[in-house]
Amino acid sequence: MTRMLRVVGIDPGLRITGFAAVDLPDGSIEPSLAEGGVIRLNGKDSMEDRLEQLHRELAELLDELKPDQLAVEKLYAHYKHPRTAILMSHARGVILLAARQRRIPVEHLPSTEVKRAITGYGHASKQQMQQAVQSQCQLAELPQPPDLADAIGIALTCARRMAAERL
Amino acid sequence: MTRMLRVVGIDPGLRITGFAAVDLPDGSIEPSLAEGGVIRLNGKDSMEDRLEQLHRELAELLDELKPDQLAVEKLYAHYKHPRTAILMSHARGVILLAARQRRIPVEHLPSTEVKRAITGYGHASKQQMQQAVQSQCQLAELPQPPDLADAIGIALTCARRMAAERL
Repeated sequence: MTRMLRVVGIDPGLRITGFAAVDLPDGSIEPSLAEGGVIRLNGKDSMEDRLEQLHRELAELLDELKPDQLAVEKLYAHYKHPRTAILMSHARGVILLAARQRRIPVEHLPSTEVKRAITGYGHASKQQMQQAVQSQCQLAELPQPPDLADAIGIALTCARRMAAERL
Repeated sequence: MTRMLRVVGIDPGLRITGFAAVDLPDGSIEPSLAEGGVIRLNGKDSMEDRLEQLHRELAELLDELKPDQLAVEKLYAHYKHPRTAILMSHARGVILLAARQRRIPVEHLPSTEVKRAITGYGHASKQQMQQAVQSQCQLAELPQPPDLADAIGIALTCARRMAAERL
């Protein structure tokens, strides 16, 4: 089968950034997991060191994976943990930059939509996301850490929506 | 006089980013304003377009201004406007990245410390900052927009502290 569309999903963080590539062959409506992993940053490094490492490693990944589309969670205003959201936004900024520098279009999906699409429930727990992703991708083990499962969920949701749109 | 130390202060934003370069000649304890301005982004552009433009324009500025030190406001956890802080953090992320890519060290100064150093009052208004900066830099006009005055204030505060440390 020809690979027609590759979507990379990203779950940004200043400690762990999850990423996953899913492929949607021509004529198929169900994407398959091609690649997944995490970029780990050292919490003891300065913020600028971590941002530089994240940008560099993600740039290498994008050059290797060559996605047609990037997908991240949409911003929302009412964060329970503003400090976490603010730190995460620094990571998100350099990730969006790396995508834009390669002219890869970016889809911003609401977190509740991703959770609902994957688990049927917009406020699913991390564990529920991991179990649903394991089952749908027929993985031998639970995807670890949760950031990886979230990235797979984001990529799947974006690819399925694109598959539905091209029907 | 030999230019011994140049500090660039930045006030990050996804619409307006203020920047200012101040020079501290050898033996002097009072920095002088060398350059200042703003990078304006179009609020109608996508976030990734704006981040790419900001990163590119700031990179050009840093290559031209060749600062020995960059200074930005420190993050703090209790933002009155989480959405503004989250948007700003995307801009801050690509600014820190541009500095780190050029190996320019970054100082993170608490906002209240900058305001207190410039106006004597840690909770000064934007206008008070503009007036104090105008007076201290002997500017013919009020520095506009307020983001420029804030950037000058950050650069001055960082340079004065460095001057005091080397006494």
